[in-house]
Amino acid sequence: MTYCVGISVREGLVMIADTRTNAGIDNIATFRKLHVIEEPGERIMVVCTSGNLSVSQAVLNYLQEGIENPDTGALDTLLTMPSMFKAAQLIGRAIRTVYATDGRSLEEHNGRFDVALLFGGQIKGGKMRLFMIYSAGNFIEVTVDTPYLQIGEHKYGKPILDRAVNYNTDIGDALKVGLISMDSTMRSNLGVGMPIDILVARRDAFKAEINHRIEPGEPYYHDLRERWSAALRAAHIAIPRPPYATGKSGVLDVE
Amino acid sequence: MTYCVGISVREGLVMIADTRTNAGIDNIATFRKLHVIEEPGERIMVVCTSGNLSVSQAVLNYLQEGIENPDTGALDTLLTMPSMFKAAQLIGRAIRTVYATDGRSLEEHNGRFDVALLFGGQIKGGKMRLFMIYSAGNFIEVTVDTPYLQIGEHKYGKPILDRAVNYNTDIGDALKVGLISMDSTMRSNLGVGMPIDILVARRDAFKAEINHRIEPGEPYYHDLRERWSAALRAAHIAIPRPPYATGKSGVLDVE
Repeated sequence: MTYCVGISVREGLVMIADTRTNAGIDNIATFRKLHVIEEPGERIMVVCTSGNLSVSQAVLNYLQEGIENPDTGALDTLLTMPSMFKAAQLIGRAIRTVYATDGRSLEEHNGRFDVALLFGGQIKGGKMRLFMIYSAGNFIEVTVDTPYLQIGEHKYGKPILDRAVNYNTDIGDALKVGLISMDSTMRSNLGVGMPIDILVARRDAFKAEINHRIEPGEPYYHDLRERWSAALRAAHIAIPRPPYATGKSGVLDVE
Repeated sequence: MTYCVGISVREGLVMIADTRTNAGIDNIATFRKLHVIEEPGERIMVVCTSGNLSVSQAVLNYLQEGIENPDTGALDTLLTMPSMFKAAQLIGRAIRTVYATDGRSLEEHNGRFDVALLFGGQIKGGKMRLFMIYSAGNFIEVTVDTPYLQIGEHKYGKPILDRAVNYNTDIGDALKVGLISMDSTMRSNLGVGMPIDILVARRDAFKAEINHRIEPGEPYYHDLRERWSAALRAAHIAIPRPPYATGKSGVLDVE
């Protein structure tokens, strides 16, 4: 499994990804899923991947080596794209190119052509944007109303995002809440695991402010997990016990 | 969707179920999913249902009207079963009976034979037990290590159970944590909704201590939701912001 979350707040972009891959529960490995493309002062782009690893790696290879532009014959890469929208379209083209090569063969061998990406960043002259790109190559974008997107094992970590993140959230708090969301996911799904890659980019900075790997045992993250556990424990203990007594019964009652 | 959770602690049994059913998002209705079979002083049994409503209702009908016992010719119902294990087997037989009647036809019409049940309770002379019964009619039971079982939309509400419930949890606290788990689920999945049915039965009491429907706006539950939200907000605000600065980068970096 995988868990990646991207949060787009007023101050900028936060992206977080775990690193665990598994081919069955008896084949666990660590692969980077958060990839940064940076020309400081000009553009920052971040790609997070989930799904079949052979597919996502092939997509990344196409984005680096380039895909031939059918009109000009030039090789398009993420670095040659003039806008984030065009870049998201290029990622869609890369996915469709891999599907054309590998899709049928995967399906013939009981594999699934299964890939999803988060793609965030900003190119000078354009806005900061954050997209989620599906295996069909189509994509959606965050809005002010829903400022985050998730791929992979998204359910365990969604409640805290729904409660604690909105467009006006401080970017440091957005990172913190994203890390709590990752913690909730890791506790419930062993297929999501440390280390965790994080990326923070402020709007109009065109560079990473934080591009860091949190390793197991890293003190801040360990402390965050402990504090969050302790606070949840205190929170439910502080709520009074239910006052209910027996009331009306269900349809099968024989009373 | 549905969310039901059963928790088996030292002091007894807690079962909680929502009441929302949907056939597509444009067809929402309220159906009771938590059903109590009680002979005070003799036996208490609780069935929670999820999955295809026509299947779960047919199963309940068989359990009330009886299924012919192939050996004796007598009609077996939940009230005639001598033990919780035998009763869980009867529910499995009821599911298989419905499958024999409706399974193929459902599949021919793009439906799924999809049902899961929680079954908890105690019969005089036996232990209190809590089972989860699958659509194949097989079942598993809680243990001291994992004292809860969920059916339906289980992921959103699982983290708080993992953190806050164990076999020695006070039964009132188990109900409280179960209600928090239901709240987290309802906030993230509109297919799970009020009212909520709750059942509490103490070990060796052979009757319901609480058998209650929580209606929308009910003061305690409203207060629980507000307090939990406020506590989560306070909890993440109290955690210091991350101290990270830019470190090593990903494979696609062009730095």
